[in-house]
Amino acid sequence: MPTKIDHIGIAVHSIEEARGFYEALGLHVEEIEEVESEGVRVAMLPLGESRIELLEPTRGDSPIATFLEKRGPGMHHVCFGTADIEGDDTKLRAEGVRVLRPEPTVGAGGSRVQFVHPKDAGGVLVELSEPPASGNGQESGG
Amino acid sequence: MPTKIDHIGIAVHSIEEARGFYEALGLHVEEIEEVESEGVRVAMLPLGESRIELLEPTRGDSPIATFLEKRGPGMHHVCFGTADIEGDDTKLRAEGVRVLRPEPTVGAGGSRVQFVHPKDAGGVLVELSEPPASGNGQESGG
Repeated sequence: MPTKIDHIGIAVHSIEEARGFYEALGLHVEEIEEVESEGVRVAMLPLGESRIELLEPTRGDSPIATFLEKRGPGMHHVCFGTADIEGDDTKLRAEGVRVLRPEPTVGAGGSRVQFVHPKDAGGVLVELSEPPASGNGQESGG
Repeated sequence: MPTKIDHIGIAVHSIEEARGFYEALGLHVEEIEEVESEGVRVAMLPLGESRIELLEPTRGDSPIATFLEKRGPGMHHVCFGTADIEGDDTKLRAEGVRVLRPEPTVGAGGSRVQFVHPKDAGGVLVELSEPPASGNGQESGG
């Protein structure tokens, strides 16, 4: 089961503009990573056991660009950190909760991730992520 | 400066309906509190050093009811926990970031809270909260 909020993903038009607010609070951008497959640049700002992720689209047809068009900038998803993503995946399916991938897939940094359908999570796009260290060997699926 | 994500506030039509997803994941509702002044019932689900707050309106003219009407259920705000809300308040004002209250006020459980204007925080309603223990005596303002 989830043990922490791993991160909150926030859709922004521009990381350069959006980071100022967090920096005024004393947070800092630890890393900026481009995920080409998702059409997004991600700025990561550590905060306790969690982090804030600022998500800037790199092309007009990316999911974040679509979100920005429809809803404007704001919170896009929340990711819960878990030590047993297979177990969570199984439990959710057993309860009739729809997940977006046939099975957990390997995401950024080798973590294994799954997503829950917002309609089954009260309108929230929920990601689940298990860090690579706690898995039984990584598979390179997805 | 903020040291953790204190909680994420999620607007829901019904706590009874929305809690099922989190319970399927193994989280539990620790407490349900009614905040009459805000027209809201709040279900608190601990998660690591943070918690999920499910916010259900108790009347049609409450801010959460208005949010649900406009945007539907989903993430409403994020709250950062801080040990120095006066310092944060001062720093934000110095940087030209608009805050919603003339000064931090006493919120739920004696914590002192301030809110940042979403327009100055990339479309996100950001709450800052300092727990009562770390303050120099609580004042009963606001």
